[in-house]
Amino acid sequence: MRAMSTPIAHRGVTNPPPLPPPSGPLRGADLTGERLLRAAHELLYERVGEAVSQSELCARAGANVAMVKYCFGSKDGLYDALVERVVTALVADLERPDAEHLEPAEKLRLHIRAVVRNYVRYPYLNHLINKRFLSGNVEAVQRLSETFAVPTREWYAQLLAEGHEAGQFRRLDPTLFFFSLLGVCELIFSARPWLEHAFGEEIDEQLLERFIEHTTALIFEGIEPR
Amino acid sequence: MRAMSTPIAHRGVTNPPPLPPPSGPLRGADLTGERLLRAAHELLYERVGEAVSQSELCARAGANVAMVKYCFGSKDGLYDALVERVVTALVADLERPDAEHLEPAEKLRLHIRAVVRNYVRYPYLNHLINKRFLSGNVEAVQRLSETFAVPTREWYAQLLAEGHEAGQFRRLDPTLFFFSLLGVCELIFSARPWLEHAFGEEIDEQLLERFIEHTTALIFEGIEPR
Repeated sequence: MRAMSTPIAHRGVTNPPPLPPPSGPLRGADLTGERLLRAAHELLYERVGEAVSQSELCARAGANVAMVKYCFGSKDGLYDALVERVVTALVADLERPDAEHLEPAEKLRLHIRAVVRNYVRYPYLNHLINKRFLSGNVEAVQRLSETFAVPTREWYAQLLAEGHEAGQFRRLDPTLFFFSLLGVCELIFSARPWLEHAFGEEIDEQLLERFIEHTTALIFEGIEPR
Repeated sequence: MRAMSTPIAHRGVTNPPPLPPPSGPLRGADLTGERLLRAAHELLYERVGEAVSQSELCARAGANVAMVKYCFGSKDGLYDALVERVVTALVADLERPDAEHLEPAEKLRLHIRAVVRNYVRYPYLNHLINKRFLSGNVEAVQRLSETFAVPTREWYAQLLAEGHEAGQFRRLDPTLFFFSLLGVCELIFSARPWLEHAFGEEIDEQLLERFIEHTTALIFEGIEPR
């Protein structure tokens, strides 16, 4: 059965999903910057986190090598801009208009599915964020906190409070829940070589659906028998 | 209240716990190799994942710089040996003789506590493992699979089967559970800058106990009201 399904985001087997669009119209050097961002998104997607050189980025973007420095200061600056573009879209997605009137439990179910799917859409995201944590670059960590961690935790705090109010959730610490929920979704992607080499599984549609179902049940009900 | 507690494993504030001992008696160059392993363990513990140079390692170990190459082939080889030493001890700890006669649920409670505590004892472990995943070094990933991932997943498979048999757990997929359990414990440590800079918390005894309690309740019961 598994062999029938196509592996996802695996060394360029599938096309990368589109990068979220910029917030406004672009002109001049920003157009080149946008091509560089898209090139970084595509190459990092295809390589599943492996290194991409600046000349490869520029070749894919059809841009002069000097433009990385001109637009972003450095390759790290380009990657920071890519991460910021992606996490800004993820935070905007938290408040989906079509989910506005759903029950808290239903919102959380949709959210778990979205988090898992986003690790497939942006398989390089955690690696780039981790590199920033380890670089000790306070400003980069600060920006990531403001654009992603703080608004996401706030969204959890509100959802958990609403769910508790509605009798659907017990009382939970939103800060700890932030790490639990993202952590429980994340490791299968960052430790993908174990999934593939140690356990002989592959990230394909079938595994993703199994994982979403498993994770949703674990978060909602834990492991005790019904 | 929090200010009274001492932060843990934070830039050398506390002493590193001892490195697990070697499997047999050492002589000749192996004694220098052991000093280099201990130096790497201490320095990586103190720096919380930040880079350590080869000359710093050798200075701490009181060893000639040529000995890293002689004993381990390279700095990466030294780090691989360090990771292997640590994960071998972690796998040996899974079958604690004092836990042998406990119920499956009680074994799992002790295990969750041990996993969280081990991220404090070896704060560099995940970073070194992740670097190996990203390096594309097939042999290093293979060894990590054999020494850690396969036996740990097997232990979960047996524990989950025993717990299901005893009516304590529902039926669970041990491969997915491997990623869930380690993932739910891990992110608060690898994303520690968010905990500290975005949410203003610190990894101290009080937070660790809160996190162990939160994680245990989540794994056992999920988020639904009792």
